[in-house]
Amino acid sequence: MGVVNGKELIDRLNQLKTEIWFDGEKVAGNLSEHSAFKGLLQTKASLYDLQCQPELKEQMTFISPSTGERVGLSYLQPKTKEDLLKRRKMIEQWARHTGGLMGRSPDYLNSVLMSFASSAELLTGRENCFPEHIRSLYELACEKDLSFTYTFITPQVNRSQIYSEDANEPISAQIVDRNEQGLIIKGARLLATQGGLTDEVLVFHAPKLFFQSNEAFAFSIPSDTKGLKFICRESFLNSESRFDHPLSSQYEEMDSVIVFDHVLVPWDRVFFYDNIKAANDFLKKSSFSPFAVHQAVTRQTIKTEFILGVAELLVQTINVSEYQHIQEKLSEIMIGLETMKALLEKSENDAQLDEWGSMRPSLIPLQAASNVFPRIYPRFTEIIQLIGASGMVSLPTEKAFQSAIRKDLDQYLQAANKTAVDRTKLFRLAWDLTMSSFGTRQTHYERYFFGDPIRLASEFYKDYPKDDYVKAINRWLQSE
Amino acid sequence: MGVVNGKELIDRLNQLKTEIWFDGEKVAGNLSEHSAFKGLLQTKASLYDLQCQPELKEQMTFISPSTGERVGLSYLQPKTKEDLLKRRKMIEQWARHTGGLMGRSPDYLNSVLMSFASSAELLTGRENCFPEHIRSLYELACEKDLSFTYTFITPQVNRSQIYSEDANEPISAQIVDRNEQGLIIKGARLLATQGGLTDEVLVFHAPKLFFQSNEAFAFSIPSDTKGLKFICRESFLNSESRFDHPLSSQYEEMDSVIVFDHVLVPWDRVFFYDNIKAANDFLKKSSFSPFAVHQAVTRQTIKTEFILGVAELLVQTINVSEYQHIQEKLSEIMIGLETMKALLEKSENDAQLDEWGSMRPSLIPLQAASNVFPRIYPRFTEIIQLIGASGMVSLPTEKAFQSAIRKDLDQYLQAANKTAVDRTKLFRLAWDLTMSSFGTRQTHYERYFFGDPIRLASEFYKDYPKDDYVKAINRWLQSE
Amino acid sequence: MGVVNGKELIDRLNQLKTEIWFDGEKVAGNLSEHSAFKGLLQTKASLYDLQCQPELKEQMTFISPSTGERVGLSYLQPKTKEDLLKRRKMIEQWARHTGGLMGRSPDYLNSVLMSFASSAELLTGRENCFPEHIRSLYELACEKDLSFTYTFITPQVNRSQIYSEDANEPISAQIVDRNEQGLIIKGARLLATQGGLTDEVLVFHAPKLFFQSNEAFAFSIPSDTKGLKFICRESFLNSESRFDHPLSSQYEEMDSVIVFDHVLVPWDRVFFYDNIKAANDFLKKSSFSPFAVHQAVTRQTIKTEFILGVAELLVQTINVSEYQHIQEKLSEIMIGLETMKALLEKSENDAQLDEWGSMRPSLIPLQAASNVFPRIYPRFTEIIQLIGASGMVSLPTEKAFQSAIRKDLDQYLQAANKTAVDRTKLFRLAWDLTMSSFGTRQTHYERYFFGDPIRLASEFYKDYPKDDYVKAINRWLQSE
Amino acid sequence: MGVVNGKELIDRLNQLKTEIWFDGEKVAGNLSEHSAFKGLLQTKASLYDLQCQPELKEQMTFISPSTGERVGLSYLQPKTKEDLLKRRKMIEQWARHTGGLMGRSPDYLNSVLMSFASSAELLTGRENCFPEHIRSLYELACEKDLSFTYTFITPQVNRSQIYSEDANEPISAQIVDRNEQGLIIKGARLLATQGGLTDEVLVFHAPKLFFQSNEAFAFSIPSDTKGLKFICRESFLNSESRFDHPLSSQYEEMDSVIVFDHVLVPWDRVFFYDNIKAANDFLKKSSFSPFAVHQAVTRQTIKTEFILGVAELLVQTINVSEYQHIQEKLSEIMIGLETMKALLEKSENDAQLDEWGSMRPSLIPLQAASNVFPRIYPRFTEIIQLIGASGMVSLPTEKAFQSAIRKDLDQYLQAANKTAVDRTKLFRLAWDLTMSSFGTRQTHYERYFFGDPIRLASEFYKDYPKDDYVKAINRWLQSE
Repeated sequence: MGVVNGKELIDRLNQLKTEIWFDGEKVAGNLSEHSAFKGLLQTKASLYDLQCQPELKEQMTFISPSTGERVGLSYLQPKTKEDLLKRRKMIEQWARHTGGLMGRSPDYLNSVLMSFASSAELLTGRENCFPEHIRSLYELACEKDLSFTYTFITPQVNRSQIYSEDANEPISAQIVDRNEQGLIIKGARLLATQGGLTDEVLVFHAPKLFFQSNEAFAFSIPSDTKGLKFICRESFLNSESRFDHPLSSQYEEMDSVIVFDHVLVPWDRVFFYDNIKAANDFLKKSSFSPFAVHQAVTRQTIKTEFILGVAELLVQTINVSEYQHIQEKLSEIMIGLETMKALLEKSENDAQLDEWGSMRPSLIPLQAASNVFPRIYPRFTEIIQLIGASGMVSLPTEKAFQSAIRKDLDQYLQAANKTAVDRTKLFRLAWDLTMSSFGTRQTHYERYFFGDPIRLASEFYKDYPKDDYVKAINRWLQSE
Repeated sequence: MGVVNGKELIDRLNQLKTEIWFDGEKVAGNLSEHSAFKGLLQTKASLYDLQCQPELKEQMTFISPSTGERVGLSYLQPKTKEDLLKRRKMIEQWARHTGGLMGRSPDYLNSVLMSFASSAELLTGRENCFPEHIRSLYELACEKDLSFTYTFITPQVNRSQIYSEDANEPISAQIVDRNEQGLIIKGARLLATQGGLTDEVLVFHAPKLFFQSNEAFAFSIPSDTKGLKFICRESFLNSESRFDHPLSSQYEEMDSVIVFDHVLVPWDRVFFYDNIKAANDFLKKSSFSPFAVHQAVTRQTIKTEFILGVAELLVQTINVSEYQHIQEKLSEIMIGLETMKALLEKSENDAQLDEWGSMRPSLIPLQAASNVFPRIYPRFTEIIQLIGASGMVSLPTEKAFQSAIRKDLDQYLQAANKTAVDRTKLFRLAWDLTMSSFGTRQTHYERYFFGDPIRLASEFYKDYPKDDYVKAINRWLQSE
Repeated sequence: MGVVNGKELIDRLNQLKTEIWFDGEKVAGNLSEHSAFKGLLQTKASLYDLQCQPELKEQMTFISPSTGERVGLSYLQPKTKEDLLKRRKMIEQWARHTGGLMGRSPDYLNSVLMSFASSAELLTGRENCFPEHIRSLYELACEKDLSFTYTFITPQVNRSQIYSEDANEPISAQIVDRNEQGLIIKGARLLATQGGLTDEVLVFHAPKLFFQSNEAFAFSIPSDTKGLKFICRESFLNSESRFDHPLSSQYEEMDSVIVFDHVLVPWDRVFFYDNIKAANDFLKKSSFSPFAVHQAVTRQTIKTEFILGVAELLVQTINVSEYQHIQEKLSEIMIGLETMKALLEKSENDAQLDEWGSMRPSLIPLQAASNVFPRIYPRFTEIIQLIGASGMVSLPTEKAFQSAIRKDLDQYLQAANKTAVDRTKLFRLAWDLTMSSFGTRQTHYERYFFGDPIRLASEFYKDYPKDDYVKAINRWLQSE
Repeated sequence: MGVVNGKELIDRLNQLKTEIWFDGEKVAGNLSEHSAFKGLLQTKASLYDLQCQPELKEQMTFISPSTGERVGLSYLQPKTKEDLLKRRKMIEQWARHTGGLMGRSPDYLNSVLMSFASSAELLTGRENCFPEHIRSLYELACEKDLSFTYTFITPQVNRSQIYSEDANEPISAQIVDRNEQGLIIKGARLLATQGGLTDEVLVFHAPKLFFQSNEAFAFSIPSDTKGLKFICRESFLNSESRFDHPLSSQYEEMDSVIVFDHVLVPWDRVFFYDNIKAANDFLKKSSFSPFAVHQAVTRQTIKTEFILGVAELLVQTINVSEYQHIQEKLSEIMIGLETMKALLEKSENDAQLDEWGSMRPSLIPLQAASNVFPRIYPRFTEIIQLIGASGMVSLPTEKAFQSAIRKDLDQYLQAANKTAVDRTKLFRLAWDLTMSSFGTRQTHYERYFFGDPIRLASEFYKDYPKDDYVKAINRWLQSE
């Protein structure tokens, strides 16, 4: 079968009987018609449609070597730098379609699954490890163009370094039993973006200091697996007016808490379990990080282009480009954009084949980018607010423009180079990007995309190849 | 009559026939029952009730020397440092009641009007100036406990320094005619907080470089004056659940564009007109700045206490106080709080009688505080987000807690020192304070409260008494 | 006897046989004639002369209640807020004389000793504690106007948290023996400013996590005690030309490593020993911090005035006050100055009598100031460099102005409002303040004056009275 | 002839009769033996020697197509990306030899001259322009391996935007006359690094707002041209001990004011004059910026490697790598290094042939880097100071280690992984890099290397190709 179009995806999701709770009610009926999910699913559908457009076919798909069918390019295991570049172009294409605002566009998790499959060999012959399950899920995903989410953040009960849970009443999802059919999971995960709105959920654990063996697992199960519940937060979409909420009406992805109520994970979906060493190794040594971060950094680069476009259009609209502090603020965004582009490109230039034949982008420049973006993105949203200034506050709604008051709005809200309507559309975009509940959640999302910024910096320090520089100084000191 | 209670205020506002446009519709019926205004008006009513509580009477009111009635203390013209301190205690009382989150609590504009009246003498004998109109409005306001808003931000058509408007089709509100009854005003103002939700609107102009004489006016008129229209932005209150939106359900103040459609301002409400020199002098030399900034800095200090409380309670709730970077972040808030308190206190210690007998707080420390707060407040909201981290994202709603899913929530969202419900309430507070549309508007509001931060810094530089320090260096250089 | 003048001080120091090592040589001859110490000692002498000037006598001295003689006011134990204010005025007087650039002006350590004596009661009746020795040293110091330095930074061998020293070969100074005469101390201290250039050295230990009992001591001994060696760093004074090095020629204080080579500390100079609890208590509960920090914050405030004067004079000299970014930079310094002043004043307003009758300034605002200054001071030096820009680089020397090239210099280095000579003097001052080895040592000194900034922030967080703010939020949440 | 070695260079410089003033005296005798210039000239000689080493010949030189001789590779006009890469490797080689600390290593100005020659065609046929003079100087420079400095900063008399000079007494160097032999120049330039210590001085003008035609010139003349005077600042080398001053003893480059006392510039050395349009065009459209910035960014990248080596070696030496804030600080340097490398590489990847056949590196990423480095370099020096902490203050001298006190130093100044001598050498390096007069001048130099940071940001904003991003947003808004 291979790639599906938007309608096929939506139909499939509507048929799942996923247990989703929204504002105290169990969601019934078609997901795609639920007001909280409609905009997102339409946008996702439009992404799937893109890969079926004849003129984009070459760019967005490839012929599966195993089935001969066209498969989404995000599933491509790159063997050459050209493959890697093709992957980037595909990611850019999807990211441009959404201004980089859909954090969990399908290519992200497809890339994760691809990386798992490419590195499955790593698990061969190890206790409680099933590399073949990863590979067969990968084949299935390619074949059906499955969509995924994943989850790895544990509930935030107590963040003290010395805290450990009561084993009898698990809070963080863990293995509480196993039987012939598979593992039994009980507990919760704090956060899954698009939780419940995908075909499958990938579940594993971020490496941590005190890893318990009942948490050392990885698997993927269908969203409508029995006992699996998705509890949504409030929706950040306040009305369906695209005029009023240009971004949230399309890109509000929803986050949910995932509860595992004695969920049975069938053996053929288990990647590994009860093997701390394998769990740590797999996350650290597989191509997971290089490919996941490569996708993310590409998307964030496109998002920075979007940010720059909005910022400069604001500047032109209210005619403030002559102010030196405005120029300085815009130059900050430009420097950020060039930095992201250069680091991304360097990761591709320095890509190398790993031991299993995948062309991995170099991780060091990607790690640099993943330390940079969480710092610059919040600043860029601040810059947009500072340019918009008082204009960000009193923005009339679509209905106001349709009412008797329109003449006043047309006169008093016009801009140097835009009508009142167009100016308002632009400012509402700027507002939805940086100040609406949707916008601030985007900022928070980017700030934490790669994990706790402080931990990220520590890891980068530890991973960084610094010996040569230290040796050079020791030599220099000796040569005195 | 003197002070009114909450009910009296609400009744009076409901009786006005103010023309307010909300989401394309002209508001009809009682303001206090409109979903967008209800929460705010209840909160305002509770403030007015406070000043009628017997145990607070002494603190919140004074006996008018002209009428012998109890009048709101925000109208008190301070003659001594004790008076000034009484004013501060009154401001703190009201600010504590709202966590400092109501930017336009009644005392702010009452203080402005008081400062105008206290300095009215400045206008005596000058062309087109009517100090007696200011004084009589002040008496009226005391007598009836009138509530006010004001407006001085011009439409943001074109912010280029060399732009000037087409005189035939005024955009910025200006005098287009005058007759026996008064001045005729046409044009708009970009932004009035609580616009339409007060008894009166105070209208004047911030000093600017190229001041035209038809903009050089000041007056106050009832909100329901003919031709006056208030066009609201979208409401940032998404539901009336106090659990879900603890702050916006109470403190969402609304902002509106004000349109003057050939509004007649009766002569007895005109403070001055067509006198650029007087307009500039009045804003610069009256006690407007000292008293307005004194109120604002007091409120912001209380708001910083609120912020600190929220931040520390988050720290305790998820038990992260042992982390050194958390300690550093909290210490930032504490330093900010101590700085605000110290500057405020210094402004009172250094207060001096002005030439018209008012005990003015010293402006320099207040200016310092008004340069500091717009920088630290956004940072403090960021700190709260950084403490809350992933916990800020998946917050269940009130209805979720009332549903079948509650047991799961109770188990998985509990915190080290709080139940799931209490933890969620706290995190929703943190979210509404810093990440909801309401919260970001608060941040924007504080960032611009005293005007453009760049202009503020320039003014502070120019106003600052620096000669002695320069002379000391010149002497030092000579002594070499 | 009481206060001494400059000459008396110098004569006394010259008579000591202190063992000082400078650039590989044991210093011989009069200290006051040694090129590395001459400038400093002259400046110190001028400070002592100040307190003997008839017109400053009242301000700089008080009549000792025990001897009836005039004693330096820095020794005054304040009993009232007026006393505290007198102390501040005295500190300001001395600080103004040196632009706040002498970190160890005599009042600093005199204040420390006064605080020890005022709190000596704290040690009464505790094991190995001799409060009477503190009091008698204090009386002696008053009587003779002794000068002090102190030292508490341990050698930086290994800063790992889990490191502990080899006890057989002590590195950090500690008690290695005791006999009838007193304690025997062996080991070193990393850093003593003006080490060897004062009458006495005060030795104690900063509280730390793993305190060993052989480090839990405090005492004071004459600088020329047998076995005590002061090893100087290189001098930062490059020439004696006051034109070329306006600051280092006067204020270069020298730092030294102190070696204790089996130094005998006579019992009557021991304050306490071998009592960890007393050592911790004394530093924490005595009035040491309030009075030491009060002196330091006062001096730093005066230094900020000096910085502001230099910055603004540079601005005027090259005529850049119209630039908005210059205005912003200057306003930063002004805000810093106001903040320091306000916090200092608040610490005095909130002063309270302690249990032993001393009027202690409130520590919280002083701690805030001591967290603020190490952050703003380095920024202020950067601002001065940014104003000076290219002008900071090619500064001619005094001799150049005395040579045939002078005419060129006069023409090409003139400034808008200064002759070439005066412009050069100003820029050399700016350079010596921020870019010479002397200047960067000043910056480093202020950055670490109160200790490691990260530790300071943690302590401030822990000490801060935050309960009321947390309770207020809990109440607010309950009231929902 | 082609490349010269160190001795040849030194001999040639010694033979020039350049008029240099140092500390009020006209320098006599061999430059290479003058204490202020000796270290620098030895280091420069060692760079010239490098290009004569057989094993580096290929890397450091190329065969001149016009003479068939080996010429320094910094003179190579790149025609391909390979050429560009060869240039970068050569720059790196020289930069590594000096830790990137020699701002004016010969390749910098050689690259500038090469860029001028490569773009000389731009001047063909324009009034008062002599492209052939540029080309013949370039040939001469290749042939003789000439060394250059340049100068373009005008005296800082008055930086007000509206200031203009008195024409009768020129301050900024300008054409005051011309005759058959050439132009007569009178006036000064504020700053030339290594002024007087090179064969030639290149003189031109940075583009500015109000350009006068008598300043619109460019030429190069020998340093010992009659009437040319170099007035040095004080030397930042305090002793010749490499132990005590590891960097300044080798890399102190000296800066000087240049005075033109009716200097005759022969016609055959004039590139253009009295043509404002040509002057602006030449700086803006020639390959000057791409090649000059490419050299600088390469050198700065190597310098960042040096910084990282020093920082990490400090961390290891006092064993503080476990501290999270230390890890964060080091990661900052690492991110900076990766960013510089990536931008540099991108400029090469995106290089394009210009209309005159030169393979120009892309300017946009280089501009980004030149906005980034002046911000991160000062921060990196601060980080080194923060790691070194108290250890930066009391550093003994070489002579101290040779004295009787050595045993104490060995014991008390040892480090976790270094002897006292080695620890001291490292700390002195760290100090000389960041805190000595030499070190702060380096910081200032990098901060201003590409010009005023504020102007740089404005230019980057203006030059940046932003239209596509704005159009994308306009399209996005239309598609709503």
